[in-house]
Amino acid sequence: MPHPDFLFPAQADMRAVARRLYGEVAGLPIISPHGHCDPAWFARDAPFSDPATLFVVPDHYVFRMLYSQGVPLEALGVPRADGGKTETDTRAIWRLLARNWPLFRGTPTRLWMEHGFSSLFGIEERLDAGNADRLYDLIASKLQEPAYRPRALFERFNIEALATTQAAIDTLEHHRTLRDSGWTGRVITTFRPDAVVDPAFPGFAGNIAELGRLTGEDTTTWRGYLAALMQRRAYFRGFGATATDHGHPTAATADLPADAAAALFGRVLAGAAAADAELFRAQMLTEMARMSLEDGLVMQIHPGAVRDHNPSVFARFGRDKGADIPARTDYVQALKPLLDRFGNESRLTVIVFTLDETSYSRELAPLAGHYPALRLGPPWWFFDSPEGMRRFRELTTETAGFANTVGFNDDTRAFCSIPSRHDVARRADCAYLARLVTEHTLDEDEAREVAIDLAYRLAKSAYRL
Amino acid sequence: MPHPDFLFPAQADMRAVARRLYGEVAGLPIISPHGHCDPAWFARDAPFSDPATLFVVPDHYVFRMLYSQGVPLEALGVPRADGGKTETDTRAIWRLLARNWPLFRGTPTRLWMEHGFSSLFGIEERLDAGNADRLYDLIASKLQEPAYRPRALFERFNIEALATTQAAIDTLEHHRTLRDSGWTGRVITTFRPDAVVDPAFPGFAGNIAELGRLTGEDTTTWRGYLAALMQRRAYFRGFGATATDHGHPTAATADLPADAAAALFGRVLAGAAAADAELFRAQMLTEMARMSLEDGLVMQIHPGAVRDHNPSVFARFGRDKGADIPARTDYVQALKPLLDRFGNESRLTVIVFTLDETSYSRELAPLAGHYPALRLGPPWWFFDSPEGMRRFRELTTETAGFANTVGFNDDTRAFCSIPSRHDVARRADCAYLARLVTEHTLDEDEAREVAIDLAYRLAKSAYRL
Amino acid sequence: MPHPDFLFPAQADMRAVARRLYGEVAGLPIISPHGHCDPAWFARDAPFSDPATLFVVPDHYVFRMLYSQGVPLEALGVPRADGGKTETDTRAIWRLLARNWPLFRGTPTRLWMEHGFSSLFGIEERLDAGNADRLYDLIASKLQEPAYRPRALFERFNIEALATTQAAIDTLEHHRTLRDSGWTGRVITTFRPDAVVDPAFPGFAGNIAELGRLTGEDTTTWRGYLAALMQRRAYFRGFGATATDHGHPTAATADLPADAAAALFGRVLAGAAAADAELFRAQMLTEMARMSLEDGLVMQIHPGAVRDHNPSVFARFGRDKGADIPARTDYVQALKPLLDRFGNESRLTVIVFTLDETSYSRELAPLAGHYPALRLGPPWWFFDSPEGMRRFRELTTETAGFANTVGFNDDTRAFCSIPSRHDVARRADCAYLARLVTEHTLDEDEAREVAIDLAYRLAKSAYRL
Repeated sequence: MPHPDFLFPAQADMRAVARRLYGEVAGLPIISPHGHCDPAWFARDAPFSDPATLFVVPDHYVFRMLYSQGVPLEALGVPRADGGKTETDTRAIWRLLARNWPLFRGTPTRLWMEHGFSSLFGIEERLDAGNADRLYDLIASKLQEPAYRPRALFERFNIEALATTQAAIDTLEHHRTLRDSGWTGRVITTFRPDAVVDPAFPGFAGNIAELGRLTGEDTTTWRGYLAALMQRRAYFRGFGATATDHGHPTAATADLPADAAAALFGRVLAGAAAADAELFRAQMLTEMARMSLEDGLVMQIHPGAVRDHNPSVFARFGRDKGADIPARTDYVQALKPLLDRFGNESRLTVIVFTLDETSYSRELAPLAGHYPALRLGPPWWFFDSPEGMRRFRELTTETAGFANTVGFNDDTRAFCSIPSRHDVARRADCAYLARLVTEHTLDEDEAREVAIDLAYRLAKSAYRL
Repeated sequence: MPHPDFLFPAQADMRAVARRLYGEVAGLPIISPHGHCDPAWFARDAPFSDPATLFVVPDHYVFRMLYSQGVPLEALGVPRADGGKTETDTRAIWRLLARNWPLFRGTPTRLWMEHGFSSLFGIEERLDAGNADRLYDLIASKLQEPAYRPRALFERFNIEALATTQAAIDTLEHHRTLRDSGWTGRVITTFRPDAVVDPAFPGFAGNIAELGRLTGEDTTTWRGYLAALMQRRAYFRGFGATATDHGHPTAATADLPADAAAALFGRVLAGAAAADAELFRAQMLTEMARMSLEDGLVMQIHPGAVRDHNPSVFARFGRDKGADIPARTDYVQALKPLLDRFGNESRLTVIVFTLDETSYSRELAPLAGHYPALRLGPPWWFFDSPEGMRRFRELTTETAGFANTVGFNDDTRAFCSIPSRHDVARRADCAYLARLVTEHTLDEDEAREVAIDLAYRLAKSAYRL
Repeated sequence: MPHPDFLFPAQADMRAVARRLYGEVAGLPIISPHGHCDPAWFARDAPFSDPATLFVVPDHYVFRMLYSQGVPLEALGVPRADGGKTETDTRAIWRLLARNWPLFRGTPTRLWMEHGFSSLFGIEERLDAGNADRLYDLIASKLQEPAYRPRALFERFNIEALATTQAAIDTLEHHRTLRDSGWTGRVITTFRPDAVVDPAFPGFAGNIAELGRLTGEDTTTWRGYLAALMQRRAYFRGFGATATDHGHPTAATADLPADAAAALFGRVLAGAAAADAELFRAQMLTEMARMSLEDGLVMQIHPGAVRDHNPSVFARFGRDKGADIPARTDYVQALKPLLDRFGNESRLTVIVFTLDETSYSRELAPLAGHYPALRLGPPWWFFDSPEGMRRFRELTTETAGFANTVGFNDDTRAFCSIPSRHDVARRADCAYLARLVTEHTLDEDEAREVAIDLAYRLAKSAYRL
């Protein structure tokens, strides 16, 4: 297990306050309102197969670091999108990880993984070439025990609610299985319409057609398309969804007159130019905000990643292979059309994330500290880390306070890292609050309330869970 | 009163140094070279009416936070620009503040207000719904005492000089009253010509006509317009002004040939396109620098805010209602035309501010660490806060040193927050210096001198007070 | 000498760890893989003339600060490019420095110089007007002793390898003298082709012609030009070069088809427009990467400075006079063409630097944490400082780890500052690591290994020394 003072400031008074605050939140249930766990795990409740398949192969945080130091992705078992050969000997993959373990020094990946090794498997040694085989065997055998099945782990992790993310045209079969299973774990879905609102998305036209097929709406017309989206949102709400999620290259929004929007839809359906695609995505964010005001779904905007920056990795391995790179992201002008229309609605909640930390203090905190509809998402992706969390609080609190933030998101597909990620967030927030207390800008009783807000209550209320 | 160690680092050696440094500066008089106090307060010396009108209604730091959490601005007594109804029961407004007090945790607003409650009214309790009425009555009754009138407070605050800000076409009647009153408090004005140099300013053409009327110059000609501005600058100097101030959307400057500038003036007077407006503002900054070289007024540039980002708040409540949002701001190319012309003049002082902290280390410190005419203004607006001040020093000192900065500006219209704002700045600077001392990069005797420079001497010399 | 705890955190546990880590690296040899020392110093081994010529006249960190506060560059002995008069009384220059010494409070320049005064000359007093003459005499007399000649200092500094930087058309005569001298100090060159790949470089066409003369290639043709560059690279490798260096206004790269590149070369040779110049520089970075893959030279890209921002200083004093200002720099799109072509080559090493710290966490760490060919250069120029180094580690480690960074570069022409600069870097890294250890995210035995990597091993391996 991590050291009791893990991530706490070294100074004795601050550490003592941090410990006390953490004591209040360490045991709170986990609210995971945004992530990418596979609902099939919980639907099927089959054992995880082996350490490499659980911890290495699907985790782009892990393999991108190894790849950056010259380890081929094939050697790590990453599936080839082009049908090429890849390593299938999971023990060999695990050994590669072990041999390269020092690369993860100073990274959150190492913290998450060691927390998992320790809390799940009782492993307190540091992984290395010498103990790789023994630890592989230990983990592999534990994974076959009933206590290590997905549902058992979900309960052991003390997860009160976990949201997965599905495409708008997903049938939600696993969520249906889950719902019908009688299992009481709260695994809900999130409505992610990128594939049907982003004309640059692979297979866009086909996706729109599928959307029509699923809903019985005529998605070749603007009106039918909007009705189909509204119908799918209702369908997702039927499987517990309380939120939508939008992963766009930029935060651009638009608010076109209805006929201009309809004409634009016609153009992008016919095969859009890049500028039309950007405008259509922008328009659709405002349409989604309008729908959210109707149906109550919380809206999440995740902008600013240049996806698949490395074309040869993309050609060989496909999407989400560690080659997404953040870019400078504007919010002030980008969000204005949506905010002009709906920013003053306090019944609407739009949660904005960023990969451009310069926007925290310059744009996002001032925006969230004014508009009733706007909230700041927690530090995301590359910034889901102790330093990233510290900067987030230091750069946003003075302008936006705590109440305009929404607690923590783990945003992960690495199920076993969830307890650790939340633990890191709780500790990082307690460390920040401990500084405020020892520097006499916040009283400790207030800090205690805030710590609970950040660890539990804000996520629950912001996501309407 | 704030804790004696308020804002000081918790580590014992650093805290001890910080205390000693602060001991040297805590009692120094306040130099407030840039702000927005109403000169009428000191001219009339009438009592402030009540707690809500003093602390809530005019303070956009306060009501923007409440608004962001769904409290209507009407309920906070913010006057409607469109004639609509707004709350007039000041006790009800105060109760709203009290009930929402936890929103201000971690914000400088809370620090400033509690400092004021404590030092002025002896209130050491935390404001809440339970004590709201009692504290309202206490403050309201004190405000009627002679010791709480503006001039008495000015003296109690130990203000050596306070600059207000007036538009170029202001008659300065309150400053005239003050000057003729025999009161010895030094309240001076600052020349702010935005309304007559920014073609996008509401009523620009009328303002130019008024400028002509006031000066007897023909402000329909470029030459007459410049002469009128020069005349108004002299008029402002007659009321103590030592500085001008320029609040532009960007830091753009231009240095056009005289005939091109004259032609541009003609176009903007006739009703300018946006590009011409930007170019004209840019040109006018360089004209103002030229005039400053003649008449010795220090020039302040406050760029980078997107004003009135929220059109519906603007329509209902008008300007300065908490909806100004910083934007990315360039200085390297923007200031070049002005600097090419006047940057090497050490008789000229141009003080540049920013709302884009990324420019501190990348652009502003390198520029100020080279050009004799350039100085860095203190952390401004959203960054007038403990964290903002710490970042400012950490990001500028290594390149620009201390002497290229100009001490602290409170830049406030909240009169009662002035002592607290200066106290926060002094403490934050002492905390920063204490780290340098304990990490052995600065000797304590030097830190003491620097602390006094930052708290008092630099503002006085940079603003020629 | 600096205090034993110089730059270490004040908190006792952290300080103890920092001391122990520093104890492991303080005595390691210096690897200086990138800098601007004059090879003639070591070739001739003549005494340095006097304190002002050694410490003030050539150091733009020093004179830019004095200039920013109104000291004319002429008074500091900076040579006039236009033939005008400049101060030649070196004692007078030294007195000016002494009188203005307080300006350097809080700057790394002061740390470097005091370290040099102390370690080289035994001076433990603070420079001021009162001791200026005495210290001048002391330093001046020491400089005449054999122990203060360049080669003796090189050995005393414990430099294992020092790279200088020469233009592609430099004859490397001093390196030849050195090679033939029998002296064992390892002073190598670096291939810097800016003058022959940047069409905006003064004398570009003449430089290309000189390149042809030196190599016997027809540099009026694209093919001959490339062959000439390849030949010069081989020539530089003959004098120990293991790296190239590229100082471009932006990080733009391009990957044109061969015939388009040839046509572009024809245009820029005939006198290019700005857009062509930018495209040509961009194309040449990719050509250089291609050549590096052939000949093994490590490639360094130093982008983002607006050179000679001050035209009147440039006209009077020429280049490199403290008026270079960083600008916002994009890497994500800029490097893509080069990375698309060669980013997956683990035999290639491209080291990227920045003057735009916002790119550390947003762009550079994610890029270096993915592409096998990419490494992050250390904090550069304005950021070669304690705070700059701290931010670099805090902003890059969590995403890129340590192994994707390359240790420290002093990048200096101030020979006597080299030991201090490396000492500052080692201390700053140990301070950072000490925090990780006391916050329990890194074990101390690991931190020890990392400290040695950062101080010595990474520079040696990344630069193939």
